[in-house]
Amino acid sequence: MNDLIKTILSHRSIRQFEDKLLTDEQIKTIVSCAQAASTSSYIQAYSIIGIKDKEKKKKLAELVGNQDYVANNGHFFVFCADLYRHQLIGEIENKNVIPSIESTEKFMVGLIDAALAAQNAAIAAESMGLGICYIGGIRNNLEEVKKVLKTPERVIPLFGMAVGYPVQETDIKPRLPFEHVYHEDEYEQSQEAYLKQLKGYDELISSYYEQRTGGLRKDRWTEQMANMLERQNRMYMKDFVQKNKLDLH
Amino acid sequence: MNDLIKTILSHRSIRQFEDKLLTDEQIKTIVSCAQAASTSSYIQAYSIIGIKDKEKKKKLAELVGNQDYVANNGHFFVFCADLYRHQLIGEIENKNVIPSIESTEKFMVGLIDAALAAQNAAIAAESMGLGICYIGGIRNNLEEVKKVLKTPERVIPLFGMAVGYPVQETDIKPRLPFEHVYHEDEYEQSQEAYLKQLKGYDELISSYYEQRTGGLRKDRWTEQMANMLERQNRMYMKDFVQKNKLDLH
Repeated sequence: MNDLIKTILSHRSIRQFEDKLLTDEQIKTIVSCAQAASTSSYIQAYSIIGIKDKEKKKKLAELVGNQDYVANNGHFFVFCADLYRHQLIGEIENKNVIPSIESTEKFMVGLIDAALAAQNAAIAAESMGLGICYIGGIRNNLEEVKKVLKTPERVIPLFGMAVGYPVQETDIKPRLPFEHVYHEDEYEQSQEAYLKQLKGYDELISSYYEQRTGGLRKDRWTEQMANMLERQNRMYMKDFVQKNKLDLH
Repeated sequence: MNDLIKTILSHRSIRQFEDKLLTDEQIKTIVSCAQAASTSSYIQAYSIIGIKDKEKKKKLAELVGNQDYVANNGHFFVFCADLYRHQLIGEIENKNVIPSIESTEKFMVGLIDAALAAQNAAIAAESMGLGICYIGGIRNNLEEVKKVLKTPERVIPLFGMAVGYPVQETDIKPRLPFEHVYHEDEYEQSQEAYLKQLKGYDELISSYYEQRTGGLRKDRWTEQMANMLERQNRMYMKDFVQKNKLDLH
């Protein structure tokens, strides 16, 4: 196993950081790594906003639901799907790009491009001895987040990433069984096999929580997921995305 | 600069591979790395289908538009957004998870989860001396791709990834300027500054193509993007996604 693979397999989210800011050089290296990721047809349909301003960080920490580590970290990045520059490109090149930009296909491209870039950034940061945590919570209140970041139409902030020098040592959370996520030649056709894999995973996760909490907690993964998904969360998203003129048709 | 960052910054797409298959151990390592990526609220809303069957590979190569390297490679992966397992979880846990699963928010989560996993896989493969190429072309004809992969409802194949031993040496394509993609504290508010950055990039790309093609080609990036976006491509996507019961509300 090479060092890069070791870094990837050692990933855990870090939510407590030293009071030490990243240097501009570190930020530039992380962003360059993000930009080196593949991009659909060279479209580069994303932007990254890095927050240095303390007041803005505090405001974002409030908006995501009072997560302290959004305010206190080495640097806070926000990754956005971005088709605003492509709208401008249509204007300067005098081509009608609007139907294309407003399609579900290009919305998907923006999301995928942004996420590929972000994961390169995450791994690069971890290779530098830094810890990271993705912050999906910025989608709790995107109207307000957009005001803070002043993003134009056709730009959707997708998630944040807190980066910094870790002070915690957290555990690696076990993932779904290999056979459950990886299918050979075609998607698993046996529902029986599929459910059996979930059952095995439930036992693993239940005992994982039990051990870590001294028996206080022993929920199964399917239980945790069902409870989470029963709550209807961020149901304003479609309206928000369409108001920003993406995913329209 | 550490080795991991060197690997990331050396990325280029590889479209010609030796006639040598990946071992099951290599496949397992790559998938384990994919699974180690962060996932929104532990939801793990993706699946990976690996194609060994030669006939299926040929069929997929046809469907993406006769791309030879989809048939001839060390292994071919398809990354899918997957909320099918969460539908089953709702059934076994007796909770109504359907409105949640069908939301735009969870569609976005599936895309982001799948892309984070894919980029870990890509970097892991490259660290093993393999080359990769993302294949967005599988979205050219998802109805047929779904038949080949036999994916159930609530699963959307997003992109393929051809992996193998590279026989080409390709160039690294220059990315948008750092200042254009990375914004400090808020999105760039000056359209003048924004357009100036694009102009500088256009000059860079034009001379990049000119040098590589001996003057045969010297298109600007904005020109290339405007021409691509003027063509309305994969406009069936919204219908397809909604027929598969995602991104509905």
